[in-house]
Amino acid sequence: MSKHYSVGLDFGTNSVRALVVDVSNGREIGTGVWNYVRGTDGVILSRDPNLARQHPAEYVRGTERSLRQALADAKRNHRGFSPPQVVGLGVDTTGSTPLPLDKAGKPLAFQKDFAKDNDALAWLWKDHTSVVEAGEITSLARQIRPGYLAKCGGVYSSEWYFSKMLHCARTNRKVFDASYLWLEIADWIPAMLTGTEDPSKLSVGVCAAGHKAMYSQQWGGYPDAEFLGRLDPRLAERCSPMPSRAKSVDQAVGGLTRDWAKRTGLMEGIPVAVGAFDAHLGAIGAGISTETLVKIIGTSTCDITIVPRKFPLKDIPGLCGIVDGSVLPDYFGLEAGQSAVGDIFNWFVNYIQPRGAKDSHASLSASARKLRAGESGLLALDWNNGNRTILVDQKLAGMLVGQTLYTTPAEIYRALIEATAFGALTIINRLEEYGVHIGQVVNCGGIAEKNPLVMQIYADITGRPMRVSRSAQTCALGAAIAGAVVAGKQAGGHANFEEAQRAMTGLKPRAYEPDRSAHDVYKELYGLYRTLHDAFGTKDWNGNLHHVMKQLIDIRDRVRRG
Amino acid sequence: MSKHYSVGLDFGTNSVRALVVDVSNGREIGTGVWNYVRGTDGVILSRDPNLARQHPAEYVRGTERSLRQALADAKRNHRGFSPPQVVGLGVDTTGSTPLPLDKAGKPLAFQKDFAKDNDALAWLWKDHTSVVEAGEITSLARQIRPGYLAKCGGVYSSEWYFSKMLHCARTNRKVFDASYLWLEIADWIPAMLTGTEDPSKLSVGVCAAGHKAMYSQQWGGYPDAEFLGRLDPRLAERCSPMPSRAKSVDQAVGGLTRDWAKRTGLMEGIPVAVGAFDAHLGAIGAGISTETLVKIIGTSTCDITIVPRKFPLKDIPGLCGIVDGSVLPDYFGLEAGQSAVGDIFNWFVNYIQPRGAKDSHASLSASARKLRAGESGLLALDWNNGNRTILVDQKLAGMLVGQTLYTTPAEIYRALIEATAFGALTIINRLEEYGVHIGQVVNCGGIAEKNPLVMQIYADITGRPMRVSRSAQTCALGAAIAGAVVAGKQAGGHANFEEAQRAMTGLKPRAYEPDRSAHDVYKELYGLYRTLHDAFGTKDWNGNLHHVMKQLIDIRDRVRRG
Repeated sequence: MSKHYSVGLDFGTNSVRALVVDVSNGREIGTGVWNYVRGTDGVILSRDPNLARQHPAEYVRGTERSLRQALADAKRNHRGFSPPQVVGLGVDTTGSTPLPLDKAGKPLAFQKDFAKDNDALAWLWKDHTSVVEAGEITSLARQIRPGYLAKCGGVYSSEWYFSKMLHCARTNRKVFDASYLWLEIADWIPAMLTGTEDPSKLSVGVCAAGHKAMYSQQWGGYPDAEFLGRLDPRLAERCSPMPSRAKSVDQAVGGLTRDWAKRTGLMEGIPVAVGAFDAHLGAIGAGISTETLVKIIGTSTCDITIVPRKFPLKDIPGLCGIVDGSVLPDYFGLEAGQSAVGDIFNWFVNYIQPRGAKDSHASLSASARKLRAGESGLLALDWNNGNRTILVDQKLAGMLVGQTLYTTPAEIYRALIEATAFGALTIINRLEEYGVHIGQVVNCGGIAEKNPLVMQIYADITGRPMRVSRSAQTCALGAAIAGAVVAGKQAGGHANFEEAQRAMTGLKPRAYEPDRSAHDVYKELYGLYRTLHDAFGTKDWNGNLHHVMKQLIDIRDRVRRG
Repeated sequence: MSKHYSVGLDFGTNSVRALVVDVSNGREIGTGVWNYVRGTDGVILSRDPNLARQHPAEYVRGTERSLRQALADAKRNHRGFSPPQVVGLGVDTTGSTPLPLDKAGKPLAFQKDFAKDNDALAWLWKDHTSVVEAGEITSLARQIRPGYLAKCGGVYSSEWYFSKMLHCARTNRKVFDASYLWLEIADWIPAMLTGTEDPSKLSVGVCAAGHKAMYSQQWGGYPDAEFLGRLDPRLAERCSPMPSRAKSVDQAVGGLTRDWAKRTGLMEGIPVAVGAFDAHLGAIGAGISTETLVKIIGTSTCDITIVPRKFPLKDIPGLCGIVDGSVLPDYFGLEAGQSAVGDIFNWFVNYIQPRGAKDSHASLSASARKLRAGESGLLALDWNNGNRTILVDQKLAGMLVGQTLYTTPAEIYRALIEATAFGALTIINRLEEYGVHIGQVVNCGGIAEKNPLVMQIYADITGRPMRVSRSAQTCALGAAIAGAVVAGKQAGGHANFEEAQRAMTGLKPRAYEPDRSAHDVYKELYGLYRTLHDAFGTKDWNGNLHHVMKQLIDIRDRVRRG
């Protein structure tokens, strides 16, 4: 029987990755990575440190190069593989990364007139030029459309779709007026692959629309024209061509064009799934199911879980997003996140502890592993880059308490790991307070794979087993799974996500089980973390902190006595 | 006209220093230092990490060696100097460092029976074996003699005289029962030099008695027998041979014995001043006067000021001690202190930033000097070793708030310096709240002499000029001044301390003046420091800290914009 494969295309901040996956068992048989060439590692910068753009030509070229590499790699590695065995294709991207398009759905950046205009490029997720506009949107929504904010944590971010559009409207009339609509690259790339860029044929994904553009069926789609018009009448105009109904990743936007088939060797017409954000397809690649939290741990984290649509889910304060169908169809996708995790460890190693050795993380982890919970007397807050969930507040900072004259770098390093774990537990607790039970956690990313100390501390602090996703490329794998599902069973793909995930995803065998006695100590420490969290992070806390240092010292002395 | 000289003997934790000083101008013409030989750098340790003792034979041998060295050094350096030109001698020591003595005033440690018993040695100031007993004394005093505590910050310390005696009474009956009385080495060494050890001839200094042994003329001397008896009847017995009236350093305990004259070449009978603690005579050597705070900055600090006896001085909560005559006769001596200053900078350099280079302090200071007040966004508490003034609480710890992903070691180093300066300001403010005005600060010690950044930050934060003492050996100089005063004018010394200080002390020419704009920023930061200080350090604070990080970020952004 002939094998079938699907391809996932994962558009990151600095590169695009193509992954060829065996739909019957999830084996990843070919990989291609194309690093973007324009700007600094693919990111176009300017004097304004907040600006971060990307040229859409990178997506076109990157798709071709990474796909051809991956297919060649698969042929090399896997006897009998040939590109026509690929039955479907999925796409995930960074986001919110909107791109201004003309009336034909082509990027303005491809026009000569705008060739040198940074505002005609894709506005990368990490572009922070739109802080003022984000404040304006939040403030107007609070006044007249509070429901819009309830699904996105109560604050509309400068990283998101309408903030960026509005900033362009305010600061670059030429680009804004020439634009007909703005699409997330998660939508534009699948359209480009299937020749459906024309607004009349266009599909948009509910993941990007719901999480970043205040889209919800609850109010009939995108924000209404009155609301957008109050911000800027042209904003309402630019939104009006958008499809009234966004789709989830079980649907195809179309079939691969003849041109793309020629350029890659894939079959013309194979279905391309609706695009979604990397973390959301990553969650699928990590085997997400109800009561499982998928943590994609990198410089920051994205935490995803799902809840059946029939569940009586309320708005959850402080959660970045709750979107019907944003991960899997028929489920609410719930997104949370920590603004810095790996970045905090990297800061400590690169800025505070530069030892000249490349293995600083390893050597600090080795020393930190010998410490017991509570024995350093330290407690940290993980806010060096603000707090995304549950406080949704960038204007916060890191904190370390409990230093003595003998505190060591390994103790601080461990305290920083613990702080991120306390942050993770705070997210889990918030979900559970609203009835969303989290039984296990599946972790993805380099830290989860390479640092058992981090995983053990996460298990000990959250009191839940930590698992690690089998695939090291969960986002691309998730995209490939979407490709397999839109191909359908008859074409050699899968009937639905449940079946596809069962066949194509898995966990590494090692489970990090919570240590009971460490967990007991951490329960006490978490009480203190939560006190500091609320005291420094919320307006309504009122109290005294006289006990904090004393309790840290008591715990330390008790643990040291053994 | 023949020159006259005096000698100061400064008994430190690890060594004794003798200093020969020209009484007419304060020139230091000869120095001798003798490092103690027993134990670890002169400190006898045991398995119990709290134990720190010293053998009294060190004081006898150290006196002879350092004196002979200093006199030889003076002869070498200074043509025409001869030891008979020395007209008086003063002594300062660490403390509280009590020593158990027999009925003749000789150390028990000199008896064969006790030769190997650590409890028969001098109990060094930093011996912390008596924590339980200190608690017991504090608690009893709170119940029945609250007045006793009001002069020593509200808490009787484990470092102090009666705690140590009581611990010995409880744990080593043999030594305690064999002891007839316990003397501070500040009292015993002058007695030993003048042959006045016999309890009938004995003098005790008001500095040690007042600051460490709850002595006050207000209640007729040492604590009453009922109070001591409630702790242990034998404690009252051991206290009964103590002189009923303690003396200040303008009085002599006697004349140098023939034996000591022979051993050193000094004249027999020259007066030896009443002994006092190093910081108190150091304050004299630094030129203390009213409205001047002398800060002796080392690993920790001792802060001393004086107030005329006629001033209607109230008890000042949180101050380590207020003792009539403890620094200068006719003035209240006020002692405060910070539990760690240099120790915090050393911790950061030695533990957190070990760069292999010896000049880490210099290189961090050089980078930190380029920063402006507030621009790091950091704020620290200086409690890595607890807080001596004004909280009087060992059970506190360090804290750093405001870290981002880009915080540098120099920023942290500067924040730690600032934290100690905020701690210094808190002490000054407490004094001023009780009417004790502090117009200028005179600093002593290696950090003050070598680190202009620290001095400038202290000036900018306290809003007061910082001066540095001219002498690098202020404690020994202060002791020599006491020697010159007890010698008297006719013998070639001085009539009183005012005259002696005018002649023998001085300041380095450089004055660190507060920078107005830095001071304004630091006023805001001090408000936040004080909020954290009160929130974590006091029981009665009640409030919210939501503004703290935000204000730090606002100040940072404002300063960076310039």
